[in-house]
Amino acid sequence: MIRNFLTATPTDVPNCHDGEGTIQVVEIFDQFATAMPYFHYTVLPPGTSVGLHQHGNDEEFYVILEGNGIMTDEGQDKPVTAGDVIKNPPYGEHALVNISATEPLKMLVFEVPCTV
Amino acid sequence: MIRNFLTATPTDVPNCHDGEGTIQVVEIFDQFATAMPYFHYTVLPPGTSVGLHQHGNDEEFYVILEGNGIMTDEGQDKPVTAGDVIKNPPYGEHALVNISATEPLKMLVFEVPCTV
Repeated sequence: MIRNFLTATPTDVPNCHDGEGTIQVVEIFDQFATAMPYFHYTVLPPGTSVGLHQHGNDEEFYVILEGNGIMTDEGQDKPVTAGDVIKNPPYGEHALVNISATEPLKMLVFEVPCTV
Repeated sequence: MIRNFLTATPTDVPNCHDGEGTIQVVEIFDQFATAMPYFHYTVLPPGTSVGLHQHGNDEEFYVILEGNGIMTDEGQDKPVTAGDVIKNPPYGEHALVNISATEPLKMLVFEVPCTV
């Protein structure tokens, strides 16, 4: 099965995890043979963020495709840019802010439970 | 943990699954808290391919970032381009050819086992 996330129509998600503004999310697939709960293409317009939140017993991956942000990763604020993949550990806490005033931050986000 | 696949040094992999030529692979992470076996950034130079091969009880995802190819997906040859995500079903068989004479095909590849 093939889906294209660049041509799909995104859904507006306001205040994601109590973050700033409204981000756009494409649910690339909505069914999996595995326990993966989601696989998203997400765009953070300038001035928006995904708020600080804690995960359960899973690993979540953010794959930065375009743009520049600050990721709260393992308690530290770190700059992220295209090509960066952030692996959030089980029970880890993270957040992401688009720090550009003009450019969107575009990324892929997916999670894999540790019960797999 | 953050890794950048665009600045990492890739490894040459000749004749991947009996495919043509030598492709380049970056192992973005080599350890997971989950049962994910790998997460790769893979570049197929012009004229190269990943040969036809069958999977076990897992789902594998190819995320096309740049370039143009032909994916053998569920027994059919389908064109793929930037933004396409191909989900290979459990026990599915697939292959990928870079059909451009001049441009590399760049993608992310990861697999999730169906062990739950």
